[in-house]
Amino acid sequence: MSLIVQKYGGTSVGTIERIEAVAEKIVGFRERGDDVVVVVSAMSGETNRLIGLAGEINDEPSPREMDVLVSTGEQVTIALLSMALQKRGYDARSYTGSQVRILTDSSHSKARIQEIDAHRMEHDLSKGRVVVVAGFQGSDENGNITTLGRGGSDTTAVALAAALTADECQIYTDVDGVYTTDPRVVEGARRLDQITFEEMLEMASQGSKVLQIRAVEFAGKYKVPLRVLSSFEEGSGTLITLEEDDDMEKPIVSGIAFNRDEAKLTIRGIPDVPGIASRVLGAVGRANIEVDVIVQNVAQDNTASLTFTVHRNEMTKAQDVLESVAKELGATTVEADANIAKVALVGVGMRSHAGVAATMFEALAKDNINIQMISTSEIKITVVIDERYLELAVRGLHSAFELADADTEEK
Amino acid sequence: MSLIVQKYGGTSVGTIERIEAVAEKIVGFRERGDDVVVVVSAMSGETNRLIGLAGEINDEPSPREMDVLVSTGEQVTIALLSMALQKRGYDARSYTGSQVRILTDSSHSKARIQEIDAHRMEHDLSKGRVVVVAGFQGSDENGNITTLGRGGSDTTAVALAAALTADECQIYTDVDGVYTTDPRVVEGARRLDQITFEEMLEMASQGSKVLQIRAVEFAGKYKVPLRVLSSFEEGSGTLITLEEDDDMEKPIVSGIAFNRDEAKLTIRGIPDVPGIASRVLGAVGRANIEVDVIVQNVAQDNTASLTFTVHRNEMTKAQDVLESVAKELGATTVEADANIAKVALVGVGMRSHAGVAATMFEALAKDNINIQMISTSEIKITVVIDERYLELAVRGLHSAFELADADTEEK
Repeated sequence: MSLIVQKYGGTSVGTIERIEAVAEKIVGFRERGDDVVVVVSAMSGETNRLIGLAGEINDEPSPREMDVLVSTGEQVTIALLSMALQKRGYDARSYTGSQVRILTDSSHSKARIQEIDAHRMEHDLSKGRVVVVAGFQGSDENGNITTLGRGGSDTTAVALAAALTADECQIYTDVDGVYTTDPRVVEGARRLDQITFEEMLEMASQGSKVLQIRAVEFAGKYKVPLRVLSSFEEGSGTLITLEEDDDMEKPIVSGIAFNRDEAKLTIRGIPDVPGIASRVLGAVGRANIEVDVIVQNVAQDNTASLTFTVHRNEMTKAQDVLESVAKELGATTVEADANIAKVALVGVGMRSHAGVAATMFEALAKDNINIQMISTSEIKITVVIDERYLELAVRGLHSAFELADADTEEK
Repeated sequence: MSLIVQKYGGTSVGTIERIEAVAEKIVGFRERGDDVVVVVSAMSGETNRLIGLAGEINDEPSPREMDVLVSTGEQVTIALLSMALQKRGYDARSYTGSQVRILTDSSHSKARIQEIDAHRMEHDLSKGRVVVVAGFQGSDENGNITTLGRGGSDTTAVALAAALTADECQIYTDVDGVYTTDPRVVEGARRLDQITFEEMLEMASQGSKVLQIRAVEFAGKYKVPLRVLSSFEEGSGTLITLEEDDDMEKPIVSGIAFNRDEAKLTIRGIPDVPGIASRVLGAVGRANIEVDVIVQNVAQDNTASLTFTVHRNEMTKAQDVLESVAKELGATTVEADANIAKVALVGVGMRSHAGVAATMFEALAKDNINIQMISTSEIKITVVIDERYLELAVRGLHSAFELADADTEEK
């Protein structure tokens, strides 16, 4: 008998039929004897409908009133799911974020959870009730309704699990777990039974969209075992844990993440003096552009060049900033390239294995793929390459590190 | 400069355009220097949409969860109206029933207001803000969301006006005031500038659907001046006050109410002994049937007959009850008649004028209308007649008591 917090996203509760299916799934856990707290999102489409209504009235609606408006979406779902559970003979109680006392700061539309009062939920659980909580929302110390921002329902679930010291927090979604890489790119991509928080964070930040980064951080911080599963299929999903797998055969690399959302900018012929990187990147930062991978080189003529990546939507804006910085610094050229892709090897096993980078570069070289940038961290090696070679690179690396299903079975 | 509480119903906020129009109306009052607290209902159709969703899941949804569900309807409207006011440069704050602390008992779907904390609203008003409150809802002492039942938004408005000791509570609706009688029946029906709470209560209980009876009772109890106006037209509507009009020419009769929702039942040949009425009506009451007008007569053979009216939908059920009572008591016959109508003269002026009943009966006699039942109170005389003569009766009485526009002008 465990205490499980489950989260079902908008697609999982998108229709009356799917809400009934979620109720059936919950009943299965209750019949096994588990206590269940459920976090749900708005039915898919509902949040956009509400935002559309606001847009008809006011181009720049106040964040406070937007939160009052969109928080109704989850409130509808909690009531309907509770009714579906009651129809099946299970006592259920729904709570909005304010009711269950998810205390947040006052940053409307991107509030952060400060405290949760678990008392009421614990009382209901002790009475054998299923507790159904609206995700994505809370209220500040003055009782104003706040929302945690899109995807915030994952964070709600993890925070509730932490407050209740639940045995597991299960995130139900439309994929059945975390994969070694995107199965649409590599046919042999394998679902991971287990992955560490650090690896998951690196995977998520590299474009693996299974979980919200914030929820993973939160789970890691409060040591909440997190599991990603499919709403629509059976299966044990992927468990995200604090402990590294103690399996002797632990693979060095857990997965390959990639994205093509970024663009690369280079400024050349800048003076090679202290503070130069901060003058360039400071200007970019002041323009509210987030920078990802950064590489600096010194040329033979004692000038430096600085290359970095930004989100592709912000390339033109970043280029404008660089042009004016170039004038100030007497730089020779500014280059921008949207046709790049980022590929990253992720794995806590790298810590204790030398030569991972060498294997990676060798595999890319074998396919004649030129590496434009390299960036490394303790559990990740990122390269930037020409976008055209992305699939080729991911497939080559997946095979070089023996991540596919068949290889696993051979062990 | 006054403090005004305004209530706009579902039709008045039924579309984005209408919400914008309501915002314009409020701006007009603010520009005049008034402080405004606004109570709104769900956009028309929304409550039924939500009830429909619940119905797809559960035939008998729990009242607690129904309240969580349907209360989202008003929450959407308060946010949208606040945004519309903000667009027009007016600071506005929306509050759900729970937020503004409308404390109710725990009778879900028909909760009663126990207490309102005016502090927060007063603070906002002092800052020059328009306060926008969700009608029809509150929360109990444990923070559970409750609703006041259909039409409860009127009650919310009156309760807020009482808590804030507002100068006036304005109920905006789709008619422009209270009329001497239904203008669809009598062409010359005249809008009343003023009416007393007692008269309004009698009019409402007789089928004049302009205001919820509970809201009128509440306003009377807390001495809140109540005004009924049109959302769609200009005009000063009808003021419902505590004081009787001190106009010397005060008419005896203020209005004529009527309805055809009732049916008449008669049980004849019951023993004329003490307790007989309670045995008959007790059985009807135990069947959960509400009884309206009651008349008892004694025949020459010392048996009694008892006639009463019930809602037409419950006639068959009441007839079944009477048949079995009739057997027990040895009554001779049970009769039921659905084709009746009730007509009532209402007016506080009756108190000081004799002969009103005589004038009424004379007017009906002139049109050859037979009176089947008569029931009187201090400010009302009710008769039950054949439904076919309803319009004829109302027009005759309207003219006999000189209620029409033309007559008024002659004075």
